[in-house]
Amino acid sequence: MKRQDYDLAKMLKYENIAWYEDGIVKILDRRVYPVTERFEICRTHQEVAKAITDMVTQSGGPYTAARMGMALAAYECRDLKSKDKLEYLNRAAKTLSQARPTTSKRMKLVTDKILQIAKYAIDNDLNLVDEIMKSAIDSLNEKYLRYGKLANYLVDLFPKSGTIMTQCFGEVIVGLMLREAKERNLDIKVICPETRPYFQGARLTSTVCSEQGFDTTIITDNAVAFTMKQGVDLFTSAADAICLDGHVVNKIGTYQMAMVANNLGIPYFVTGVPDIAHPDIDTVEIEYRDGDFVLQAMGVPTTNRNVKGFYPSFDITPPHLISGVVTDKGIFSPYDLDKYEHEGFVEP
Amino acid sequence: MKRQDYDLAKMLKYENIAWYEDGIVKILDRRVYPVTERFEICRTHQEVAKAITDMVTQSGGPYTAARMGMALAAYECRDLKSKDKLEYLNRAAKTLSQARPTTSKRMKLVTDKILQIAKYAIDNDLNLVDEIMKSAIDSLNEKYLRYGKLANYLVDLFPKSGTIMTQCFGEVIVGLMLREAKERNLDIKVICPETRPYFQGARLTSTVCSEQGFDTTIITDNAVAFTMKQGVDLFTSAADAICLDGHVVNKIGTYQMAMVANNLGIPYFVTGVPDIAHPDIDTVEIEYRDGDFVLQAMGVPTTNRNVKGFYPSFDITPPHLISGVVTDKGIFSPYDLDKYEHEGFVEP
Repeated sequence: MKRQDYDLAKMLKYENIAWYEDGIVKILDRRVYPVTERFEICRTHQEVAKAITDMVTQSGGPYTAARMGMALAAYECRDLKSKDKLEYLNRAAKTLSQARPTTSKRMKLVTDKILQIAKYAIDNDLNLVDEIMKSAIDSLNEKYLRYGKLANYLVDLFPKSGTIMTQCFGEVIVGLMLREAKERNLDIKVICPETRPYFQGARLTSTVCSEQGFDTTIITDNAVAFTMKQGVDLFTSAADAICLDGHVVNKIGTYQMAMVANNLGIPYFVTGVPDIAHPDIDTVEIEYRDGDFVLQAMGVPTTNRNVKGFYPSFDITPPHLISGVVTDKGIFSPYDLDKYEHEGFVEP
Repeated sequence: MKRQDYDLAKMLKYENIAWYEDGIVKILDRRVYPVTERFEICRTHQEVAKAITDMVTQSGGPYTAARMGMALAAYECRDLKSKDKLEYLNRAAKTLSQARPTTSKRMKLVTDKILQIAKYAIDNDLNLVDEIMKSAIDSLNEKYLRYGKLANYLVDLFPKSGTIMTQCFGEVIVGLMLREAKERNLDIKVICPETRPYFQGARLTSTVCSEQGFDTTIITDNAVAFTMKQGVDLFTSAADAICLDGHVVNKIGTYQMAMVANNLGIPYFVTGVPDIAHPDIDTVEIEYRDGDFVLQAMGVPTTNRNVKGFYPSFDITPPHLISGVVTDKGIFSPYDLDKYEHEGFVEP
C-alpha cells in the first residue's frame, strides 16, 4: 500500500474537515450537516477555538481545526518580530488546545509539535504558514496510512454477510472501514444509533455509510438492545481516548451499548491507537456540557417547564466490556495495551 | 381512603385526558404538550380511532379515548333503530379497539364491557351516551383507587432521600406516586430520560414531576448508564403489558435500562396490574411504527440521505431483570404473578 493511496483529497469527504486559506479558517458545521451544508468562517484563532468549544466540528475534526488555527495564528502574527511571533503562537497553542477539556491533553501533543515546527521555521527564516500547513498535510496522510491498516484488521472481524452497529461518528476510521468492506465485497448492513443530543450517528455516520452504498438504518439510542437482540454480529466504535489501562472514553452512550452487547453475546471492538497521554482512566476529565442543550432537539425545545438538563458529553467503558482494541498494529486485548509499540501520536 | 379522594377532576391533570361533550371528542395532543397546548377535535369515532393510531394520546390515554369514542359512536347512531344501534356500536368497538395492534387485546376488554352496557341501556331504554359516560367515570375512579394503593406500595420502596429514574410516561401512576412521596415528605430527585422519538419523558413525565415541586432532571436516553452509575437508588416504569409469565412490554428503551440497572445493582420495579389478556409473552405482538419517524426529531429532519429508519415502539424485558412487580395488591416477584388475584380489568 503506497502513501499516495491515502491522498488527502480523496479522503477529505470522510472528515468534513477544517481548512486554512488566505487568512481564514473554514470549518464545516457538523451540527447541521448533512441537512444543511454550512461553513463556520473563522477570522482569528480565537474564533477557531470557540468553534471547537461550540462543537462546530467533532471527533478528529478539532485536531485538524487546531492545526488550521495555528496556521491562522501564524498569519495573524506575520508582522511581529521573531521572538514575539513564538510568544504569540505559544498563547494561541494554549487557547486552541484547551478549547475542550476532555481532549486538551491530546490536543497539546498536536500544538506542541506545531510549536517545534514554528520555532524551526522562524530560526531558519522559512514561511511560517506554509510550514504549518505542510505539517498538517503530512500528519493527515500519516493518519490515513495508519488508520487504513487499522481498518484492514477491523474488517477481518466482519462476517461475509451480516449486520454491524456503530456509535456516534468514527470519521476517518468509518470511511476506511467501509472502503475496505466494499473492496472485499462483503454484504454488510449498518445500524447507526442516532446519538443524541447532536445526532452524529443519524447525520454523519449514516450519511457516510449510505453514500458508500451500504444498506443503512438509523435507530433511536433507546432501541439498541432491541435491535441487537434481533441480530447484530458486531458492535464497533472509535474512541475519544483509549487509556493504557483498557478503559475507553467515548461519546455518551458507548458504555451502555457495550454493556448491552456484552449481555447479548455480541462482540464490541473499539478502534484507535492506545493513548500515551492517558496511562489510566484517572487522567481523564469527563466533560460536562451545558445541561440546557438536552432540553431541545434539532433546535426545538422539548420542554418549557422548570426542569434541569444533565449532559455528560462522554462516558467510560471499562475493559471487561471490550472484546478487543483494533489498532494499526493489530488487535489487542484491552488488558494488554502495554504491548502496543507507540510511534508518535496519531490523531483521531 | 375514600372513593371521593380519587375524584376525577383532581386527577385529570395527570392524564391529559380525552373527553366527550356535545357530539365532539377533544383529545389533548401529547405529541406537542407541554410546549404547545393543542387539542385534537374528533367529530366521528373513526377520527378518534385515527387519533389513537397517530399517537395523539398515549399510555392510558387511548383507553379513555376509546370510551369517549364509544360515547361519540352512541351519539352518531342516535336516530337508528335499537337493533341497528348495537350493530353500529359493534363496528365502532372494532374500529377503536384495533387502532393500535400492541394494545388491541386489552382495548377489546374495554370496548366489550361498553357493548354490554350499551345493550343493557338499549334494552331498558336508557340514554345510551349517558350510560357510556357514567361507566367511563366509574372506571376512572376505580383506576385511581387501585393505582393509589399501588403508589403506596411503590413509595414504600423509595429512600427517605435519594434519586429515582423513570422511563417514558407512567401517567396516573407517576402522578399518584409523586403525591404519595410528597405526603410522606420524602426528599426525592427524579431523573427522566427523554424517551425518543416522542420525548414523553422530557415532555410529560418531567412536567408532572416539576409541577409537583420535585427536583427534576432530563437526560438523553444514551446517558442512562452514566447517570445510574453516578447514583440512582431505584428505576421504575409502568408497562404497556405485564405478562403473567413475568415478561414486561413497555416503551422502547425499557429493556436496555433494566439491563443496565441490573448490571449496576440498581433495583427495577415495574408498576401495574398483571395482564390476564397476556398469559405469556408469545401473546404479544410488538408494534413497529413507520421507520421514517425516527429520521426526525421534534419535526426537524436529522438526515436527507438515502437511509432507512427502524422504529419498534415497544420492547420486552424478561423477568430476570425485574426486581419486583408493584401492584395494587402488593409487590410480586415477576415469577409469581399467578398469585395475583384478578378483579376485573384495570386500565393502564
